[in-house]
Amino acid sequence: MSWAGKILRVNLTAGTVKSEPLNMKWAKEYLGSRGLASKYLVEEVDAKVDPLAEGNKIIWATGPLTGTMASTGGRYTVVTKGPLTGAIACSNSGGYWGAELKMAGWDMVIFEGRSAKPVYLSISDDVAELRDAAHLWGKTVWQTEEMLKKSHQDPQLRISSIGGAGENKVLFAAVVNDLHRADGRSGVGAVMGSKNLKAIAVRGTKGVGNFADAKAFMKVTYEKKKILAENGVTGQGLPAYGTQVLMNVINEVGALPTRNHRDSQFEGAKDISAEAMATPRATDGKKPLVTNQACFGCTIACGRIQKIDQGHFSVQNKPEYWGASGGLEYEAAWALGAANGVNDLDALQYANVLCNEHGMDPISFGATIGAVMELYEMGVLTKEQLGIDAKFGSAQALAHFAEITAKGEGFGKEIGQGSARLCKKFGHPELSMTVKSQEFPAYDARGIQGMGLTYATSNRGACHLRSYTVASEVLGIPVKTDPLAADGKPDLVKAFQDATAAFDSAGICIFTSFAWTLEDVAPQVAAACGSEFTLEKLGEIGERIWNMERDFNNRAGFTNKDDTLPKRLLTEPAKSGPAKGLVSKLPEMLPKYYEIRGWNADGTLKAETRKRLGL
Amino acid sequence: MSWAGKILRVNLTAGTVKSEPLNMKWAKEYLGSRGLASKYLVEEVDAKVDPLAEGNKIIWATGPLTGTMASTGGRYTVVTKGPLTGAIACSNSGGYWGAELKMAGWDMVIFEGRSAKPVYLSISDDVAELRDAAHLWGKTVWQTEEMLKKSHQDPQLRISSIGGAGENKVLFAAVVNDLHRADGRSGVGAVMGSKNLKAIAVRGTKGVGNFADAKAFMKVTYEKKKILAENGVTGQGLPAYGTQVLMNVINEVGALPTRNHRDSQFEGAKDISAEAMATPRATDGKKPLVTNQACFGCTIACGRIQKIDQGHFSVQNKPEYWGASGGLEYEAAWALGAANGVNDLDALQYANVLCNEHGMDPISFGATIGAVMELYEMGVLTKEQLGIDAKFGSAQALAHFAEITAKGEGFGKEIGQGSARLCKKFGHPELSMTVKSQEFPAYDARGIQGMGLTYATSNRGACHLRSYTVASEVLGIPVKTDPLAADGKPDLVKAFQDATAAFDSAGICIFTSFAWTLEDVAPQVAAACGSEFTLEKLGEIGERIWNMERDFNNRAGFTNKDDTLPKRLLTEPAKSGPAKGLVSKLPEMLPKYYEIRGWNADGTLKAETRKRLGL
Repeated sequence: MSWAGKILRVNLTAGTVKSEPLNMKWAKEYLGSRGLASKYLVEEVDAKVDPLAEGNKIIWATGPLTGTMASTGGRYTVVTKGPLTGAIACSNSGGYWGAELKMAGWDMVIFEGRSAKPVYLSISDDVAELRDAAHLWGKTVWQTEEMLKKSHQDPQLRISSIGGAGENKVLFAAVVNDLHRADGRSGVGAVMGSKNLKAIAVRGTKGVGNFADAKAFMKVTYEKKKILAENGVTGQGLPAYGTQVLMNVINEVGALPTRNHRDSQFEGAKDISAEAMATPRATDGKKPLVTNQACFGCTIACGRIQKIDQGHFSVQNKPEYWGASGGLEYEAAWALGAANGVNDLDALQYANVLCNEHGMDPISFGATIGAVMELYEMGVLTKEQLGIDAKFGSAQALAHFAEITAKGEGFGKEIGQGSARLCKKFGHPELSMTVKSQEFPAYDARGIQGMGLTYATSNRGACHLRSYTVASEVLGIPVKTDPLAADGKPDLVKAFQDATAAFDSAGICIFTSFAWTLEDVAPQVAAACGSEFTLEKLGEIGERIWNMERDFNNRAGFTNKDDTLPKRLLTEPAKSGPAKGLVSKLPEMLPKYYEIRGWNADGTLKAETRKRLGL
Repeated sequence: MSWAGKILRVNLTAGTVKSEPLNMKWAKEYLGSRGLASKYLVEEVDAKVDPLAEGNKIIWATGPLTGTMASTGGRYTVVTKGPLTGAIACSNSGGYWGAELKMAGWDMVIFEGRSAKPVYLSISDDVAELRDAAHLWGKTVWQTEEMLKKSHQDPQLRISSIGGAGENKVLFAAVVNDLHRADGRSGVGAVMGSKNLKAIAVRGTKGVGNFADAKAFMKVTYEKKKILAENGVTGQGLPAYGTQVLMNVINEVGALPTRNHRDSQFEGAKDISAEAMATPRATDGKKPLVTNQACFGCTIACGRIQKIDQGHFSVQNKPEYWGASGGLEYEAAWALGAANGVNDLDALQYANVLCNEHGMDPISFGATIGAVMELYEMGVLTKEQLGIDAKFGSAQALAHFAEITAKGEGFGKEIGQGSARLCKKFGHPELSMTVKSQEFPAYDARGIQGMGLTYATSNRGACHLRSYTVASEVLGIPVKTDPLAADGKPDLVKAFQDATAAFDSAGICIFTSFAWTLEDVAPQVAAACGSEFTLEKLGEIGERIWNMERDFNNRAGFTNKDDTLPKRLLTEPAKSGPAKGLVSKLPEMLPKYYEIRGWNADGTLKAETRKRLGL
């Protein structure tokens, strides 16, 4: 086994911290991280609980490969019932925090209840305790990291925390670790804020290991790293350009949602692309991109470190770490840029840094601004309400909204509710580009049809990280499928959903799946955890996790009616590019998907499916 | 115990790697790192062996606090018989390598014999093997690190290696780890080169721990870090200015050796000081100092990252990492600067980066150039021989010599023998500013009298890191003594020598001793290793180590006649500053020192001393 075998249970109401053995039966059925933490959640939490109430729980979890020598073994997840969606939420992050928790000897930390006063959890190997966080409340993520490292006198301390967005219960508040890495989606940071939990600071020196077959593990992880190194995407594209390599590609296939999905191609795509990040600016002659950066154990290194033009947006008055910090990922660049028609790369990075610093999901934030701008252009929202002229394309408006949302000021409070609640409040629910109240990421469901089904059926609301069929439909991984066709997509989506759940639960990064399939993951898990973890078993675990998540959502009140897309994507054809004239073919795909899932027509699990998967 | 309890023994002749248990009896008598590795060396190696012959051994060793949460617990040492001195050599380095070896589950690695072909040792937790290094031979330290991380597919890999200087057996070749941290002195890198050993690449995931009392350890290390944070030197001076804070201070007390010790104050000191590093340059308006940087677990962070003026010395053609890399420490700035009368900060950093890149000790290199320049000004060496006009103060000559020495070209071969052999060869042995053939560091023995006795009696040749009486004589730590007086210095030097041996052997950085005494170290070692490690016992261990090293040197052929200083310091009075008119008072101090050491007049150990210390 390469689980640590122990979990921490923290009762914030009582102020107690207890150690308990990991449930090994569940570990074998749900692997770790996403799957295993979700199992604990669905067993312990009433599916109908208000996500921000005391009865919700929130779990930080590593996988069996977290902290090991497996490539990208630095991942951890935060699992809770999400306040943005009301569905089960599982947000995944890299950096170093997850590996550190594992090295401290813990597989996961479960928080229950609610503290009366701001607290943080300090973990030093076996010693874990709640400490007063009054002095940290109101501080940014970056200030919090700095203050904790200083007060613990430990530069190696790793911190997972919330900024003002989580404290103010912004419904897309993120949990951020290692300054730039985030459990971004579904508002997991707001749950942390609702519990008066500011941060988890961890230092671990116990190491990982205890492998089923240590020699085999070293050998197989080395061999699998080779596959990543030799692959065009993981060995060349991602290290050189980061995820931003997609900006021009997705624009060309006509699936770059633009101006709140009014359009599906953006004339300014090239200005906010990876190529633009690597080109010296006209203003100061410097490249925005400083370098790439890897998370713990990662041999891909897709992360970006980016520098803002120092003359832009008064960054002169910002703390020093504004100089060069976590740079634009494709999803963030899209949401802050194309979704609002903004093509000013420095403005995007300015908003992006605010998201990191204050702990907000840039996808939901940016996409919500897209809706605000559309409502403004329609005359529904006014300059007086917003505090600024907010036409599509306004870099000034983007920066302004980032500031007021981060600080919870004025109209920022409305933005902080996300686009579904905002559009509903102002009388145009149809303009919210969301599924289950969570904003879309950067792929138009009309131009990449598999993504429409992915979004509609995602267990955490619209999301690209639950079944990234872009890999097949655009990049041809593992096989090329036609992005404009509906045929075969239900099978593709199911296969990707199940496999992704297994990747996530192992504790590795889904980006490895550009080069690896479960066939590559299985021998790594087997060498670490035991030979019973075959390819077949991992597939079964993935499917079990997917159905467990679905079942929780059904019990929470979701039905087949929630497996849908905004009217715009179902009725307004794409105006340009390869998908011109097309709408989403979701109605054609969904029944077939239910069928192969083994679900009833109302979206509930058939008894035989439940039995087959041991649910 | 917080030793890992295992050592690796590598026979390079046979190509074998074996694990053996740590000798726990020795561990309790010699603690770890410097002391324990030296015990293995003196037991296993003939003191009369040629340091570059197959019969010499070379040992990489951690201490019991290495890799733990103790502040500065990132240290390791390389122990061997030194080729520059012919004495026992122990060079200490920080960075991350030592902690990584410990986390892989090893206290030390002993190399014996000589490989027929270039090899490197790869350690991945329990798995250690020799691998072909033909493709690495001829590469710089920095290229070697990059190539190994790539071929191992492991960005977390830590590497300790030699560059061209070690391969070419430059007698002051260093072993370098983590790009900028070096086991600098006595030519330990040349021993590595003589054995055809290019590098040790290590990745450890097993952690450290196994403390005698883990809770007490966490508590006491936290308390002791507080002392460092609240101390003016370790909490303010070193983080803000680095060791370079000393340049103006030592110049003012009249103890900054200048132009091969002709003078003891340097008119250009302010141009090469910490203050100059923090001031924007006239040429490009930028500060040379980019940031400070900490080693593993260090709460002081004295390291510097420095940028060279990009217009200087054609650095445009250098690899990218030349842009900002390991910056000037005080000793390097002095040796490359004042010792040669050079006041060009960028030239100093250019030579410094060449030292890091190619693996050379900047102290011995710089000080040797001082001798070359004096011989040039005397007409003994000519422009034809040297390839350049080499007057004191020539930045061009400094850069030129750094290049040819690193590459082993032309007169660089003579420089690579160090100043003792060079001055002797060209007929002026009296101009070599060395003890036991090792060059002085940055303190004039006429202006800081305790340092004269320190140099003369150092077991590894002239060195400031065996008894840094500057702390007492200049900074008043732990008590202020008069730098111009001889009285009391024998006791002071003995106390510092013994305490330093204990600090070094615990696996922590000697810079902690600006704030800590052995009273602060003892409870940390006790919590980690067992309650028998009291203050008294640590003092006894330190003294035992010192006498063991001395005894090895005596057997190697050193006598009381070698405990001396160059004629210049004994007969030419200082020309300016507080020490004006003074020479070193060594003859007055030495007999008293022998007496309190319990040594005979010929410098050998008395039988009673041997008995008292269990030698």
